[in-house]
Amino acid sequence: MSGVFITFEGIDGSGKSTQARRLADTLRARGRDVVLTREPGGAPGAEDIRALLVEGAPGRWSAQAELLLFTAARRDHLERTIAPALARGAVVICDRFADSTRVYQGLRGPLRGAADRLHAEFIGVEPARTFVLDLDPADAAARGLARGAAQDRFEAMGLAFQTRLAAGFRALAAEFPDRVRLVPADGPEDAVAARIDALAAEVLP
Amino acid sequence: MSGVFITFEGIDGSGKSTQARRLADTLRARGRDVVLTREPGGAPGAEDIRALLVEGAPGRWSAQAELLLFTAARRDHLERTIAPALARGAVVICDRFADSTRVYQGLRGPLRGAADRLHAEFIGVEPARTFVLDLDPADAAARGLARGAAQDRFEAMGLAFQTRLAAGFRALAAEFPDRVRLVPADGPEDAVAARIDALAAEVLP
Repeated sequence: MSGVFITFEGIDGSGKSTQARRLADTLRARGRDVVLTREPGGAPGAEDIRALLVEGAPGRWSAQAELLLFTAARRDHLERTIAPALARGAVVICDRFADSTRVYQGLRGPLRGAADRLHAEFIGVEPARTFVLDLDPADAAARGLARGAAQDRFEAMGLAFQTRLAAGFRALAAEFPDRVRLVPADGPEDAVAARIDALAAEVLP
Repeated sequence: MSGVFITFEGIDGSGKSTQARRLADTLRARGRDVVLTREPGGAPGAEDIRALLVEGAPGRWSAQAELLLFTAARRDHLERTIAPALARGAVVICDRFADSTRVYQGLRGPLRGAADRLHAEFIGVEPARTFVLDLDPADAAARGLARGAAQDRFEAMGLAFQTRLAAGFRALAAEFPDRVRLVPADGPEDAVAARIDALAAEVLP
């Protein structure tokens, strides 16, 4: 795979979707072939699985069933979208990937060990660089309300859960120091984008 | 779990759905609490996953994505339907279970090893007795056409594949001799039902 795989992670409202799109726009303006995608979803089959995951009541799936569905969607996304784009040399920018599963399913269950075994068996790909957008959950919640975001099943889990998630995402930077960069996300959007652009240059040929 | 878990396996058209229903009817007529269910599906969430599996083009999912979806559906079915019924002491009769995954996904991939690891981690339950209905695939295909069965994705895979499946189901009896009983399914429906009723008595209190 000759392309470069970059992922964005963080809690809801941290600005990762905005920043993923901005980095994609910046790199395209410089003439690069960029595929901007997201999880769960990012391929037709994976989007169908996404609908099962984000719709319905909070107790619709157990933590175990949910982990299997996320991994099925990721496998489909990898096969249909990510791997072909990397093979042709594109920059693939993905809004959430395996780190979200490590953090969310690590808290629900806890299933971190099972998530790691599924990842090793069915996914096996890691990004070249992962940006964790770090923001206080109360600030992130305020942003979510400001943009009128739909309260999906995960957002509905409340501030206490988001606080545990934020700590989980922060811990990724310590666990994977070569790959993960923690980016403070409380500054102006332009400043955060400039910081990410500079950090992305480290992994772009 | 104080109930008794019985599964039916075999190729499409072997008569397993008919015989599963007949055994359920027979046991109910004797006053037993019986839950008749099927895979993929058997619970609301699992039925939603079933729709993703049986609809669409044959190449819609890779063997790996399909294995993850089957396991997610089985986990949901186990949690919502099978385990609660066994806990209250019911006889649970299921049309297809993990053996179908062992045989189908063992041929597609081959993913038998991965299927076994997923089963150990996420399912962990085996039936007390499994009836494999053994029928020549050409005879089974003729039955399928006679009843006007919908050609779903698996049935559409053709006679050569069904022949490999039939051999795979037969091999289960050798692999799990304590649990699996091979039942010749080419005789009259009443005779097959009587044979299964007698064999089921071995595991019913």
